[in-house]
Amino acid sequence: MTDISAQVSRVVCDSGIGDGLCHVFVSHTTAAVTVNENADPDVQRDLIAAFEAMVPQMTFHHAEGNSDAHLLSSLIGESVILPVESGQLRLGTWQGIFFVELDGPRRRKVQVSLIG
Amino acid sequence: MTDISAQVSRVVCDSGIGDGLCHVFVSHTTAAVTVNENADPDVQRDLIAAFEAMVPQMTFHHAEGNSDAHLLSSLIGESVILPVESGQLRLGTWQGIFFVELDGPRRRKVQVSLIG
Amino acid sequence: MTDISAQVSRVVCDSGIGDGLCHVFVSHTTAAVTVNENADPDVQRDLIAAFEAMVPQMTFHHAEGNSDAHLLSSLIGESVILPVESGQLRLGTWQGIFFVELDGPRRRKVQVSLIG
Repeated sequence: MTDISAQVSRVVCDSGIGDGLCHVFVSHTTAAVTVNENADPDVQRDLIAAFEAMVPQMTFHHAEGNSDAHLLSSLIGESVILPVESGQLRLGTWQGIFFVELDGPRRRKVQVSLIG
Repeated sequence: MTDISAQVSRVVCDSGIGDGLCHVFVSHTTAAVTVNENADPDVQRDLIAAFEAMVPQMTFHHAEGNSDAHLLSSLIGESVILPVESGQLRLGTWQGIFFVELDGPRRRKVQVSLIG
Repeated sequence: MTDISAQVSRVVCDSGIGDGLCHVFVSHTTAAVTVNENADPDVQRDLIAAFEAMVPQMTFHHAEGNSDAHLLSSLIGESVILPVESGQLRLGTWQGIFFVELDGPRRRKVQVSLIG
């Protein structure tokens, strides 16, 4: 998991938007994006371990060996939407935005859209 | 789980918005928001029990004892987006909006944003 | 799972929207919508099997026998939001939009909203 809050905040600030919504979208099917605690790095470490532990022990037909990543991508989600007020992301005190790599390392693309 | 549909509907009505989207955002990392059935209260009871039953039996490093809440927050999600038509939330017949407390009881904050 | 990407794309094209967001919303509590791989049909087959395998073996109080569907609906999610650029959905190379039937077959309704 990679904290991308600073990069997303910069896009929001640079856009000149006032109030609205910020959409963060992962253009991949073996990665995800989520909001969670950004204070204790153990939370991120626990999350990745717990995500993997939740994948059922079963035979997958998809032959690329990354079926766990496809499953978790749908459960965690490919996008988050965040409120923007007065040109700033309005995250909670402990919230950060995390890109979740499920089949890496790879070069990945995240799209940020703003609606005001 | 707490049904917050009436409060969200009131925000929509009071805003004067016509058509658009309603964003409901939980500013916490140990709570979530979801859409599910609002008719039979047993659905909510089952959901909370099933969410907890899905948490893997493992050692978490985060020392606050609420790692299950962080995990479920990312899986259930910190926001929902709902269609608004002619100034009304357009939920399905059986759909309600539920705040999901995963580490309470606590005083919590939900942000509602409207885009039209 | 049913790939509804073509239908959603057509709504986007017909709307005349330029840049913005596309919201796909399922008006049901025993179905869901997700983004995942549209190339290998085995991915969809694996996903459905894995979703079902994740449902905990427990006694549900809701008496309609579809508690697994309610649970998965909240975990997979009732909506997705997709970026629109120059009048086109901006999905990743391998991404498709899938309606996920969890308690069918039934006649279902999906609402598509565009914000530009």
